[in-house]
Amino acid sequence: MQAQPAPISASTACLIIIGNEILSGRTQDKNVAWIAGNLNEAGVRLLEVRIIPDIKQVIIDTVNTCRRNYTYVFTTGGIGPTHDDITSDAIAAAFGVPLELHKEAAQILENYYGKEQLNAARLKMAEIPVGGILIANPVSAAPGFYLENVYVMAGVPRIMQAMFDNVKHLFKGGAKMLSRTLSAFVTEGIIAEKLSAIQNQFQDIEIGSYPFIRNQRLGTSLVSRSANAAQLDKASEQIRQMLLSLTTEVLEEDLAA
Amino acid sequence: MQAQPAPISASTACLIIIGNEILSGRTQDKNVAWIAGNLNEAGVRLLEVRIIPDIKQVIIDTVNTCRRNYTYVFTTGGIGPTHDDITSDAIAAAFGVPLELHKEAAQILENYYGKEQLNAARLKMAEIPVGGILIANPVSAAPGFYLENVYVMAGVPRIMQAMFDNVKHLFKGGAKMLSRTLSAFVTEGIIAEKLSAIQNQFQDIEIGSYPFIRNQRLGTSLVSRSANAAQLDKASEQIRQMLLSLTTEVLEEDLAA
Repeated sequence: MQAQPAPISASTACLIIIGNEILSGRTQDKNVAWIAGNLNEAGVRLLEVRIIPDIKQVIIDTVNTCRRNYTYVFTTGGIGPTHDDITSDAIAAAFGVPLELHKEAAQILENYYGKEQLNAARLKMAEIPVGGILIANPVSAAPGFYLENVYVMAGVPRIMQAMFDNVKHLFKGGAKMLSRTLSAFVTEGIIAEKLSAIQNQFQDIEIGSYPFIRNQRLGTSLVSRSANAAQLDKASEQIRQMLLSLTTEVLEEDLAA
Repeated sequence: MQAQPAPISASTACLIIIGNEILSGRTQDKNVAWIAGNLNEAGVRLLEVRIIPDIKQVIIDTVNTCRRNYTYVFTTGGIGPTHDDITSDAIAAAFGVPLELHKEAAQILENYYGKEQLNAARLKMAEIPVGGILIANPVSAAPGFYLENVYVMAGVPRIMQAMFDNVKHLFKGGAKMLSRTLSAFVTEGIIAEKLSAIQNQFQDIEIGSYPFIRNQRLGTSLVSRSANAAQLDKASEQIRQMLLSLTTEVLEEDLAA
């Protein structure tokens, strides 16, 4: 009996990184790969990332475009207490709702800082768009929030990751995408034709070819992805045989990553 | 006499990263920070990054939107010889021109691979949209190209960097954005109000505030950016004094990067 293919996820996501520090080259982003991998675990497919500056109208327009196009939208950055933290304000404007002091958020901040230390700047972090539901921040208290399908998180990786972990049970994903990787010191140009034939045989499998340079040697990592483990094994075995027809050394390792 | 402020760059850029491998979380991007930093050196301001999948229509739509909105558009990825390399084809479609075997590109590939080894898959890398001007690739021969304001480069960082270096003399930028960084183990909430007052005094300077956690201690890096060195020094000195009013240790180092 032929195995039933697992359904590909219909849940899609877009990540909006709000941060001049990434666009200036000052900060090396570490959030894209982490969120992408964790969405994959949840059966949600990340289809787009946009990195945009701390400009209110740009945030509004980007959020409004993306929340219509994807099942889930994530934003990172811009929810702190300083003048350049304008994300909550922009999200409120995108949804056409006011920002309001959120009582529970204010209480969380008061518990964390103490009444004495809870100044106006810090209290700003309790201003949440009306309708927003808090996302707990176990690292530094000030919460994120979500409104409909838009999840608003901090930019600091450790805080963002903790926030994501607190909401991931909410995501309705499909089957998790699985992958098989094979690498060999053969160049893409040598394998392209044969690989194309394999790809044509397995239409539901996404085969990616990634060149690499390792110790002055050129090679290629071939990554097959699908939610269907049985089909994936079949395609991967054909790729292995194809590589073994050209070289003796085939590694189950991603040398291009 | 007051120093004349250097003109802010009117040249803007958008980077489009074409790559399922980034969106799946498989590959940690290293191109955004490098391109951002190098554009800044050229006086061009990176205002947006989009990471999109290897889907032809998505590439076409994204390129057509971005090339209207920015002075320069850069793409990375998808110009190799395998079935998943569809960037050149999509760029041709975006510009409404055919793909054509580019004689000089074919000659470059023949010189590199030799006539015997120049198979059909490799020759595909010499198919360039009509009107495209080659960008030399000193690492692995197969060239990139540019068409009007769209620069099409490889995704492998070493190759992309070499291609970028070969075209950067073409970019007409404004004054280079300079920056001053100060870090201290004080939290954003403590400095927010005073920092906001400094920001209000220096409207042409962009002051970013970035929290960090180092050895369990919370702190903030403050980054001031402007093309005007004199103003920048003035603002930075005020920030230093503000920090010194709260702590004895102020570092000229970016602890949040």
